[in-house]
This record gives sequence, structure tokens and C-alpha cells, in this order.
Amino acid sequence: MSDDACLFCRIVAREAPATRVVEDDTPLSVMDISPANPGHALVIPKKHSADLLEIPDDDLAACAQAAKRLAARQRDRLGADGVNLLNSCRPAAWQTVFHFHIHVIPRFDDDPLRLPWTPSAGDSAEIAATGEKLRT
Amino acid sequence: MSDDACLFCRIVAREAPATRVVEDDTPLSVMDISPANPGHALVIPKKHSADLLEIPDDDLAACAQAAKRLAARQRDRLGADGVNLLNSCRPAAWQTVFHFHIHVIPRFDDDPLRLPWTPSAGDSAEIAATGEKLRT
Repeated sequence: MSDDACLFCRIVAREAPATRVVEDDTPLSVMDISPANPGHALVIPKKHSADLLEIPDDDLAACAQAAKRLAARQRDRLGADGVNLLNSCRPAAWQTVFHFHIHVIPRFDDDPLRLPWTPSAGDSAEIAATGEKLRT
Repeated sequence: MSDDACLFCRIVAREAPATRVVEDDTPLSVMDISPANPGHALVIPKKHSADLLEIPDDDLAACAQAAKRLAARQRDRLGADGVNLLNSCRPAAWQTVFHFHIHVIPRFDDDPLRLPWTPSAGDSAEIAATGEKLRT
């Protein structure tokens, strides 16, 4: 079911680099390389689905539950005061990688986050260090 | 498990008004009264959980799957070009009603949506009409 042209399928298959955080049977969590806020991670199903309208119910449930667990880690290990979950389905809704994913974005009191954020490459050392804090 | 002071518990119990869209055993979908975009709906679990960090896994799964079905209706019946799912967990992440909910926000090519939106009362007749289109 993987799609050779899909970046996230290549990450799942370890053919493209990523800071992996948590890996379950169904979903994989990785750090976002252009974070909206420090600690921003993504939950992606290992089996390819283009978007919310295509993902099977069981994969969706597993991804949502993984996002919840990751949110708790962001609170406990990064001191997040809150968390946003965001799914973007189709280009009209800001989707840019066409493999379903849930953004898990830590929030901090009075941070200036607005959506959509302007993606720019994050500090790779900082992303790796934050990923390490979140990892099992 | 309901909380008498909770607006969404009162909506579930039909003690507060709402434009109901879809009602399942676990989640209820209603129209947002201050929509970010036309057709904006909310999926809420019938059993009270304050937020993402507290909701049981099975309620979370049911809500995510209900959000997916609602997104398909927004595409099919409202002509949405895309959909955003948003969960706000805790005040730092824009949560204002402390009963877990998923925003299901229809998106239209080149619409001007930015998050957070500025809540203002929507046109109640328009919200009712859109809710009718989305209803089973």
C-alpha cells in the first residue's frame, strides 16, 4: 500500500530521514521539520491514505489515540500549557503532503501562534533534542 | 458523568438549544453558533471529558470517526473543497468550552480563513439551513 513517490511512505520505510518519536504498529510519530511551535510533531499512519476522506476508520482511531498520548508527553516533558491537534484535508485546507497526518502542536501560555504558520526550516539540533525528550 | 454547569452536557441532554446534525451512541454533532466558515460543525462526546488529555480512547476514536463522516458530508452536500479538523486543548490552545470537541471546518478554495478566528454570532437562519443540509 505504500506509494514510492510519497515522502511519508519513504519515512515509514526508513528511506527518507526523520526524527522518529514513537512507533506503534499502526502510526508513527515524527518531529515536524518546519515547526509551528517548539516540539511540533506529526502522527502518520504507516499504511498510505491520502487524507481524512480516505483513511480507514481503524487507522484514524489509532492515529487520534497516538496524538493524545503525544500531547500528554508534550505537557509532561516539554511543559506545554496546551496542545492543538490539526488535520488539513486537501489543498483548500492547507494540506501539502498527501499522506494523512495529524499535527500535534504544543502550546505555551501567550505564545503568538496563528494558523496557518509560515513554514521555514527549524533548527535541526533543537528539533533532534526535543524529539529525544519526547521519545519513549 | 454529565456536568450540570457544562454547556455541551446541557446540549447533549437537550437542556440547551443547538442545531443537531448527527447523533450516534457516543458522539453528537452540532453546528457551531459562531462559525469560522459556513458549515462549521462540532463533534462532541456525550459523556463529559474536559479535553484531549482526559477523554477515554474509545470516545476519542468515535469522535474522530464521526468527524471524518461529517467531513465527507461537507464535501458532498456543501461543496467543500477541503476540511480542517481542529482540537483545542486547554486555554493556551484556544479552548473556551471545557468539554472535549473537534471542530470540523469546511474549506473552500481561496477562502480567507485564519486561526484562531474571531468568534461572532453567525446568522441563525443560515446555520439552521446548513445544518439541515448536513443532517441525515
